[in-house]
Amino acid sequence: MSLPFDAWQQRVEQALKQSIPAATTDPARLHQAIHYVLFNGGKRVRPILVYATGKLFGRAAEDLDAAAAAVELIHTYSLVHDDLPAMDDDELRRGEPTCHRAFDEATAILVGDALQTLAFQVVMDADLTAKVRLEWVRELASASGSRGMVGGQMMDLQAEESSLSIDELRTMHLQKTGALIRASIMMGAAPALPDPSAQDALVLFAESIGLAFQVQDDILDIEGSSDTTGKPQGSDLEQNKTTFVSLFGVEGAKRELQKLHQQAVESLDMFGERAESLQELANFIVQRDH
Amino acid sequence: MSLPFDAWQQRVEQALKQSIPAATTDPARLHQAIHYVLFNGGKRVRPILVYATGKLFGRAAEDLDAAAAAVELIHTYSLVHDDLPAMDDDELRRGEPTCHRAFDEATAILVGDALQTLAFQVVMDADLTAKVRLEWVRELASASGSRGMVGGQMMDLQAEESSLSIDELRTMHLQKTGALIRASIMMGAAPALPDPSAQDALVLFAESIGLAFQVQDDILDIEGSSDTTGKPQGSDLEQNKTTFVSLFGVEGAKRELQKLHQQAVESLDMFGERAESLQELANFIVQRDH
Repeated sequence: MSLPFDAWQQRVEQALKQSIPAATTDPARLHQAIHYVLFNGGKRVRPILVYATGKLFGRAAEDLDAAAAAVELIHTYSLVHDDLPAMDDDELRRGEPTCHRAFDEATAILVGDALQTLAFQVVMDADLTAKVRLEWVRELASASGSRGMVGGQMMDLQAEESSLSIDELRTMHLQKTGALIRASIMMGAAPALPDPSAQDALVLFAESIGLAFQVQDDILDIEGSSDTTGKPQGSDLEQNKTTFVSLFGVEGAKRELQKLHQQAVESLDMFGERAESLQELANFIVQRDH
Repeated sequence: MSLPFDAWQQRVEQALKQSIPAATTDPARLHQAIHYVLFNGGKRVRPILVYATGKLFGRAAEDLDAAAAAVELIHTYSLVHDDLPAMDDDELRRGEPTCHRAFDEATAILVGDALQTLAFQVVMDADLTAKVRLEWVRELASASGSRGMVGGQMMDLQAEESSLSIDELRTMHLQKTGALIRASIMMGAAPALPDPSAQDALVLFAESIGLAFQVQDDILDIEGSSDTTGKPQGSDLEQNKTTFVSLFGVEGAKRELQKLHQQAVESLDMFGERAESLQELANFIVQRDH
């Protein structure tokens, strides 16, 4: 059976287009930059997680568009800020100049700021019950803040000055990428609050694929071609960063990836065939080449 | 009759303290920086606007703490980002090193990001009806985004390259500072939705004091002592910025300030004595020396 990944990608493209001001809106340079960073061929993994989890709980895709757009807006803002010279200082993102290179640093800072705001606005404007919208705002905020994504990015920056232990590396990634992945899943499930064991299973799934995603990133940094990844090969190595590869070696990292993949798949056992989309996503994450 | 400005300042200090993680929370450097920027003697004008407007509509101060904290969190995040080298490149804020000088640029970017998130989180966590919390999130988001505060900051940056007309200058300030001032007032009034004429009056009041605040800023840049303002004197002039003073001269700007003040005071006529706190705030704004 083929799964509706393409259809979901199109849904979220549409939802994003509807939620942002036209590129000609004043101040036009800011809105042009917002369009530039949002529509550059992102994989939309987090929105797909929202839809796939929603499908598991029988929710209609149209009731999830705002959540899907919101997690992508938060994700995109974080990329724009992480790429800044004072942060990771990246020149390319998906093969194109990063926002501060295509525009300028001040614009990139403001683009990120505006995208974060927009994420909350999109959720607010959804034609859904107050209960769902409030739950979504809560998930988004707790995933994004200083004890979530932003805290993880801070740890990542500090890790450039000292090497991390495996536990520290895990904690950093669980916050930096794991928190928003987890929020995407929880937002897809809300407010059909699953029983505690289903909730535990979803959290374990989220944490496993969140870490798997990062382990695969670390492997791709060594083995990926910069044509497909859109980033220079070996940049982690050059920056002396602690990664799963630097701690375990490439083969060790691949074993870790398999372990996390298996853990993710097993965590879905209780849902049976209904969890097929989530399972396929877990497969995609470990097999992707960019 | 003395008004409870001091009591309101203390309330919001307390609300802010309760809403942010302890400075020792991991990552500690990030949380230390958050404490540094939030507690450095800010005047808390926006929180006071929330309380003063709430008082006008008979709302209890304790029901407004979250709104008061949220507008201050948004305001503080915007200051931290505006001070960055790529933006206004300011070294001092209220006489102390700006966040990126006291810590570093990456930390300052992340502090701003985390404070914005926190603003939405504080509103979500308030022990109030869904209706009020949703209304507050909507006000906060629409004031902060690319058609509000962030859009105004973008216009301000672009204005450094070309001089503005008086209309452009007004539009820029109405977005850059006016939008959040307006949101503070609307959040104080929500959900006791006033009738349309009361709503119009509040919007006129908000826009008048928002612009008055900025005109007074421009005058203080020329006439204020850097001891009281905490910023170098004449920095607008040096940066060749369009200001109310550059367009009207100092005396013209003072006349504009009086006009805006009068407009603000008159807009409150329909509320009678109940609007005393808001009136006193308008007086404070035109008389302040820092």
